[in-house]
Amino acid sequence: MPGYLTLPKDEFKGRVARLQSNLAAAGLGGVLLIQNTDRYYFTGTLQSGFVVIPVKGDPLVAVRKDYDRAVAESAWPVTKLASTRGLAHLVRETFGELPSPLGMEYDVLPVKQAKMMEKLFEGAEFADASHQIMYTRAIKSEEEIDAIRIACEQVDRAVSMVAGIVKPGMTERELSARIEYELRLSGHAGRIEMRGFNQWIFYGHVLSGRGGGEPSGFDMPTSGIGASPFISQGASDKVIEIGDAITVDLMGSNGGYLCDQTRLFSLGELKEPLKGAFAAAVAIEEEVAAMARPGVSASELYEKAVELADATPYGKNFLGDGAKVSFVGHGLGVEVDEYPFLARGFKMPLEEGMVFALEPKFIFRDLGAVGIEDTYVVRADGAEQLTTSPKSLITVE
Amino acid sequence: MPGYLTLPKDEFKGRVARLQSNLAAAGLGGVLLIQNTDRYYFTGTLQSGFVVIPVKGDPLVAVRKDYDRAVAESAWPVTKLASTRGLAHLVRETFGELPSPLGMEYDVLPVKQAKMMEKLFEGAEFADASHQIMYTRAIKSEEEIDAIRIACEQVDRAVSMVAGIVKPGMTERELSARIEYELRLSGHAGRIEMRGFNQWIFYGHVLSGRGGGEPSGFDMPTSGIGASPFISQGASDKVIEIGDAITVDLMGSNGGYLCDQTRLFSLGELKEPLKGAFAAAVAIEEEVAAMARPGVSASELYEKAVELADATPYGKNFLGDGAKVSFVGHGLGVEVDEYPFLARGFKMPLEEGMVFALEPKFIFRDLGAVGIEDTYVVRADGAEQLTTSPKSLITVE
Repeated sequence: MPGYLTLPKDEFKGRVARLQSNLAAAGLGGVLLIQNTDRYYFTGTLQSGFVVIPVKGDPLVAVRKDYDRAVAESAWPVTKLASTRGLAHLVRETFGELPSPLGMEYDVLPVKQAKMMEKLFEGAEFADASHQIMYTRAIKSEEEIDAIRIACEQVDRAVSMVAGIVKPGMTERELSARIEYELRLSGHAGRIEMRGFNQWIFYGHVLSGRGGGEPSGFDMPTSGIGASPFISQGASDKVIEIGDAITVDLMGSNGGYLCDQTRLFSLGELKEPLKGAFAAAVAIEEEVAAMARPGVSASELYEKAVELADATPYGKNFLGDGAKVSFVGHGLGVEVDEYPFLARGFKMPLEEGMVFALEPKFIFRDLGAVGIEDTYVVRADGAEQLTTSPKSLITVE
Repeated sequence: MPGYLTLPKDEFKGRVARLQSNLAAAGLGGVLLIQNTDRYYFTGTLQSGFVVIPVKGDPLVAVRKDYDRAVAESAWPVTKLASTRGLAHLVRETFGELPSPLGMEYDVLPVKQAKMMEKLFEGAEFADASHQIMYTRAIKSEEEIDAIRIACEQVDRAVSMVAGIVKPGMTERELSARIEYELRLSGHAGRIEMRGFNQWIFYGHVLSGRGGGEPSGFDMPTSGIGASPFISQGASDKVIEIGDAITVDLMGSNGGYLCDQTRLFSLGELKEPLKGAFAAAVAIEEEVAAMARPGVSASELYEKAVELADATPYGKNFLGDGAKVSFVGHGLGVEVDEYPFLARGFKMPLEEGMVFALEPKFIFRDLGAVGIEDTYVVRADGAEQLTTSPKSLITVE
């Protein structure tokens, strides 16, 4: 089926081997995976159930439903699980004893589920394996990078259409709806997964003028007004006007693999300070991206971006006007917010195969937001850009 | 701004009073709310921070960002919170002592967040308040019901368009994309929140022929093939063909308030057993909806639906072919999966103001799915239907 992304089964074997090496280094006996994304990432199937990966040996993929679909999709043999109650017995039968300590996904697993597991595996020693899981997922294979490239093509197609559509009097929502429609026709699945608790996103943000300067509670440099106090980010019913800076911050999605890109449009000539700040953002992106190579820490990229921004007249508007976010980029794969975070204090060194979005943005509360964003993969000799849209400001007359 | 739903401040006062009465009945001293939806529901703002509601007295709304936006949106006074570390001090200062036991949202709160709170409020006694929160949220005000009505109008508009668009050779995804575009133009926010862990949904499902019969790991009677093994539900690239039963299961969303409706289309004459099963689904919905009134337990509705389905030739296909879901409906509000669940063993009696979707569906693994779904509110004298689209099978020649 065109666009129905399936990865070769070997892909999943490499992932499990990498996780096992990370578990061994942390002294963990194994992990119990329950969250959708992690189960998918290590097995190839999202079908409902549990995955146990011991520090050595093959995983147990126990599926409640749909068993037939899981068998067809999984890179590992699948065991039918009649009920959650049967899991403890199945795990002990499979591995002889319970892998211990048994890591769980404490960053995403609700307390209720964790307590259920503690009761089910009475007396077991549990630990947090979030870091080992996220670190394993940070290194992308060429298969994954190719999937992301296709997601980047979706975004490029949609963005190349915007200049022909946007006009004064249109609302942010109307423009956003038209772009989303185009993305869907390109194969975009619509759903964007975020790992961070309380973090939501739709396809991305289409923001204009003052709407772009609107802060929100979400941990993003730009958020917008949104559709209501509840869906308080993204496109709103604000009308796009002459002089507005229009942020088109979109994610492509190919089989769940994401690409994150921001381009800036202007309806009529863009005025200062927005024009100068946009040029500064592009220059910061170029300089920071040129630093990204194996061994450089993710936080160094953030510090560099802040240093460069502070040397412009717009430093106080960098990454927020007032409340600022403390990152200038983030990893992405099948979730938006993966390792590495190009953030204050996130000292993890970059490695080959890490994919990240770099997004220097300046926010002017009363004028709007300007900035740029591209997706990169870390190669042995530097960062390769995966997004392909031209970076210049697009002025629509 | 048109469509930017804000509720009167009194609305939130009634919600807090209802929660407090439920907390008192359960012997809880208060709740600490962290999840987006719950904070929004009790305050009117989703801006980032924490909400503490004591069993008596006014809530504390502590906001990190955006403070100004929270002040504008919240029904309660807002306190600025510089960092999470300051929360324990602020709570003790506000209430004199920590409300105890302090309920948390164990059904949605990740372990990592809960452990952080246990450390922050060292020595405090915590408890699960999920049930009290969900039970409070189950009773809708007339303001909420009106918001849901508007969401139902969105869906009706989109559905009324389908017969003019669908044609053989179109993919499920193309049809779905066109419908989603229409919904967005009607004010739909795009995002649909589900509370259940590992449960995802997009606008809903557009499924056709064998694609409708495809089971998945999600806890829904119909799921479809989806866009990939990762996004394994909803519309796929399957081509719609003559003879296909086409399920259009859509959610409207107005300021986050949802409406859930399913209608059935057929490209050409629908064949048996699908035709007979659809008629049976409509009859089951009518009979079960007629039973819904205050005092009747939610599980009785499920049991009645199963009893009625078993009396047809299609009993084994009811709510699944093989693996079945054990519910025939679910509450909804700002999340899809609210109380009451019309499910096996869910004995909660219906009350005035509860809103639920009722969805009798028959699934034939090799032929597809047929069924219907409408959204109702429980009134003193019975269920009032909020969805407005005609219920008949729509045959497109």
